[in-house]
Amino acid sequence: MLNERMYKLGSQRSGIRELFEFGQQRAKIVGPENVFDFSIGNPSVPCPDEVTETLKNLLNEDPVKIHAYTSAQGLPSTREAIAESLGKRFEMDVRPQDIILTCGAAAAICTTIRALTASPDDEFMVQAPFFAEYNVFVPEQGGKLVVIEPDLETFDINIDAIEKAITQNTKGLILNSPNNPSGHVASLDTLKTLAAMLKRKSEEIGHPIYIISDEPYRELIYTDTVVPYLPQIYPDSIVCYSFSKALSLPGERIGYIHVPKDAYLSEKIVPAILGALRAMGYVCAPSLFQRAIEQNVDVRPSLDVYRENRNILSDGLKALGYRVIEPEGAFYLFVEAPGGDANAFSEKAKEKDVLVVPGDAFGCPGFMRISYCVKKDTIERALPRFAELI
Amino acid sequence: MLNERMYKLGSQRSGIRELFEFGQQRAKIVGPENVFDFSIGNPSVPCPDEVTETLKNLLNEDPVKIHAYTSAQGLPSTREAIAESLGKRFEMDVRPQDIILTCGAAAAICTTIRALTASPDDEFMVQAPFFAEYNVFVPEQGGKLVVIEPDLETFDINIDAIEKAITQNTKGLILNSPNNPSGHVASLDTLKTLAAMLKRKSEEIGHPIYIISDEPYRELIYTDTVVPYLPQIYPDSIVCYSFSKALSLPGERIGYIHVPKDAYLSEKIVPAILGALRAMGYVCAPSLFQRAIEQNVDVRPSLDVYRENRNILSDGLKALGYRVIEPEGAFYLFVEAPGGDANAFSEKAKEKDVLVVPGDAFGCPGFMRISYCVKKDTIERALPRFAELI
Repeated sequence: MLNERMYKLGSQRSGIRELFEFGQQRAKIVGPENVFDFSIGNPSVPCPDEVTETLKNLLNEDPVKIHAYTSAQGLPSTREAIAESLGKRFEMDVRPQDIILTCGAAAAICTTIRALTASPDDEFMVQAPFFAEYNVFVPEQGGKLVVIEPDLETFDINIDAIEKAITQNTKGLILNSPNNPSGHVASLDTLKTLAAMLKRKSEEIGHPIYIISDEPYRELIYTDTVVPYLPQIYPDSIVCYSFSKALSLPGERIGYIHVPKDAYLSEKIVPAILGALRAMGYVCAPSLFQRAIEQNVDVRPSLDVYRENRNILSDGLKALGYRVIEPEGAFYLFVEAPGGDANAFSEKAKEKDVLVVPGDAFGCPGFMRISYCVKKDTIERALPRFAELI
Repeated sequence: MLNERMYKLGSQRSGIRELFEFGQQRAKIVGPENVFDFSIGNPSVPCPDEVTETLKNLLNEDPVKIHAYTSAQGLPSTREAIAESLGKRFEMDVRPQDIILTCGAAAAICTTIRALTASPDDEFMVQAPFFAEYNVFVPEQGGKLVVIEPDLETFDINIDAIEKAITQNTKGLILNSPNNPSGHVASLDTLKTLAAMLKRKSEEIGHPIYIISDEPYRELIYTDTVVPYLPQIYPDSIVCYSFSKALSLPGERIGYIHVPKDAYLSEKIVPAILGALRAMGYVCAPSLFQRAIEQNVDVRPSLDVYRENRNILSDGLKALGYRVIEPEGAFYLFVEAPGGDANAFSEKAKEKDVLVVPGDAFGCPGFMRISYCVKKDTIERALPRFAELI
């Protein structure tokens, strides 16, 4: 009678949201300060004051204009600001028509996958560990997700394994650097080698292999690492960006897609993405936040809080004997589960109101993701519980 | 290589948005005051001051909280406020878990259709004239749109025609009252007769026929007409509501779905809709506006401006000899094209920078939709052009 696949997706939901909602329930019983919720990537740093100021100023302008529908692709002035910023920052020719405003990165990825998927045989590769929702986003947009095994030592991109997985049906490779959940950042050298391999294989199979670069964590870097901009290295890269993490606006659903003008068929990809937005009822990205972004496109997050959290949690867990993957970016710590069973560990941790996400959800069993976008105090008070758990 | 269907959807776009973008281009050339854009339903009345005040107050609260992800279904407190308001207003038992916050009515309709569609044979009926995007929304969510001919005299619901169109595959009927584009409002008597027929036919075919009630114009009524609440009359009604028109927030993408607790399989429909939201990457409705709505759920629009516009335009066009369908609600005038060819009329009108939407897009050739959510002055100065066009 109903769509059972949707029912399953909606009743099981993602493990991460399940844990989050469990935490919300427990908070009502034991008090929010006694729930150590490391499950969700909700930024714990306020959005920069400039953004709040811009929002307040916008609310003094004509409400008819401010809250109006924008064109489906987004306000021309906002796209101009983003294009100019990207162009300057990465020394590229980026045009407003190459930018599509979206309701966050999830909408960006879904519509990009839908636009690129021409046949149910089309394959999109991703190397584990990876954002669990790709398991939903790719098949629901008509494609097949092909998972490449993780490199459990370095958590780096395994170019040989990716090459071996390429078939005639390979349409794209999803990259996510800085990576959720590992915090790993791909180096320029690695990406250049990857690009050369993809170029060679594209010629071999007779059509381009697109990179879909999921970049919500681009601005969250704690080392001297530079995050390379993929379109500079490999023109067939479609960038899906979100301001959720960079400007601490996750609930506001604002992001964009950059289709480089030199990408193969770029002049068709942009309308195809607009078609996908239309097919799913997106209409436009939230208008007030489109305008707010326009004025804050070069505002960067203050990383001090996350850096301190990262150091306390990473050092604390290492001192307790946990194996921690050193994170260069994002705000997650990827940690090997003592005993090797991350699900059992997560269940045991839940009993102590400590919420960590088993790596199985990220295609990486035996590890767990610990989000450190929480209060410093939460980390400090949780460490004794982690001590009991090991 | 790409998804050609998406490319087609994105490159052709809707006739309405095409006209809107044409108007934006012309505005740059002849000045915005010389473009008489009656094409789009962008409210011309500012959002109520209470909403702006709420937004400003929210921006003084903790930004981490205000802009955080909400649960996929929406903030519990916002759903409580909506449920309480609906319950009081319509004397029904409405629970927070029956409400799902969405990115506007388009997202609400798409996810509802997707949740209800169990087979590619599933049919959703709609009587013309109807919102053109149903032509996209229904098939893209896997269903079939079955169009019932309009009643060109009364523009009322043709219950006999709907009954004749019901098959074993009928899953639902999309209703939109007040109607876009005709402004027609279905009466309580009509809806009761419709409900009795649907109940009888549901028993006959062995499964319920859901009503999907698309209600962005619920609050926009210019007569003493009362808009009945469908779940009171027919429990298998799923209400898709938007604050776009009611609170003049169209670009902000905020609305909700009400699945009545007495609807058949309601306990499965809610998770199925959540699954559809997840499948399409919606994550959550914009968080700031979820909170703003919570405090303004009973705020109603000021209708004076629209009522005045409606009267000037309707009286003006009638005086010129146009046949106008008297609108009780929404903010559109549906007008018979002089000579019978609405496309030719629209093209001729474009030459005079007057933008009206041919009824073909609404399954109703020979008529055209004139949005009167514009400045009064635009209507007054356009009337001489309409005089030349007849």
